[in-house]
Amino acid sequence: MTFSLLPIGRVRGGRVEPIDDNWGSVEATIVLDGGLPEDSLAGLLEFSHIEVVFIFDKVDETRVVTGARHPRGNPDWPQVGIFAQRAKARPNRIGITTCEIVSVSGRSIVVRGLDAIDGTPVLDLKPYMHEFGPRTAVRQPAWATELMLGYWH
Amino acid sequence: MTFSLLPIGRVRGGRVEPIDDNWGSVEATIVLDGGLPEDSLAGLLEFSHIEVVFIFDKVDETRVVTGARHPRGNPDWPQVGIFAQRAKARPNRIGITTCEIVSVSGRSIVVRGLDAIDGTPVLDLKPYMHEFGPRTAVRQPAWATELMLGYWH
Repeated sequence: MTFSLLPIGRVRGGRVEPIDDNWGSVEATIVLDGGLPEDSLAGLLEFSHIEVVFIFDKVDETRVVTGARHPRGNPDWPQVGIFAQRAKARPNRIGITTCEIVSVSGRSIVVRGLDAIDGTPVLDLKPYMHEFGPRTAVRQPAWATELMLGYWH
Repeated sequence: MTFSLLPIGRVRGGRVEPIDDNWGSVEATIVLDGGLPEDSLAGLLEFSHIEVVFIFDKVDETRVVTGARHPRGNPDWPQVGIFAQRAKARPNRIGITTCEIVSVSGRSIVVRGLDAIDGTPVLDLKPYMHEFGPRTAVRQPAWATELMLGYWH
């Protein structure tokens, strides 16, 4: 049984190529579909951050990985399952990123630090509430920390 | 243009009714679809937390809100847009929760603090990396902090 999801909008601006690193200072605009009322964004600017849910639509569905692989193909890192990494070529091709809200105007939201390229379909937006972050201490493997070293900066 | 997404698994156990509060200690199991290899979860236990992406499939699609409403219908809180709150009855009915990984075995993951009921379809799982949390100070309105007071505890 599948679910048919209709994008609520698109990413406009920002990068046009999916480069791996240095996303932190990239600004882009999320433009809502014209069928959605502007008041769907009422009060959003009282939050500093938003979670953006999007589809990596440029990933060829035949290249989706369902098992394990080296993150970024790097043999120095262990083979880990697709659900133990955040790679694009994953079942359902969903990406989720928490980014800063710069401004909101009409049906547009300018965000900073969204790692999705120009044209990316957006499925949902959720305000970041600190209570929805981890409620206990976070632990992660060394490979993940190494991979993320240059991701934002 | 819509995207057709196939659940990767289901939530099993935990609560059977969508109660608003006190989700923190609830344990449930995410059972992957039998068509996915077990090594899709390889290395997951090295992470303390996982982001679970799911569909609020019990929400009637005709009841989805696209504009603004009072969170939980509470007139003491402001009317805010559906994308400025995390209510279930939202376009595409997607839920995302960061929860603790208790154990991983075969195609099953036991998690603590997942606010999705028994039977909920799961679209994706992502390991929580602290670098994917907010990179700058978090700000949120008072209503959100009040709403969340009893959510986990």
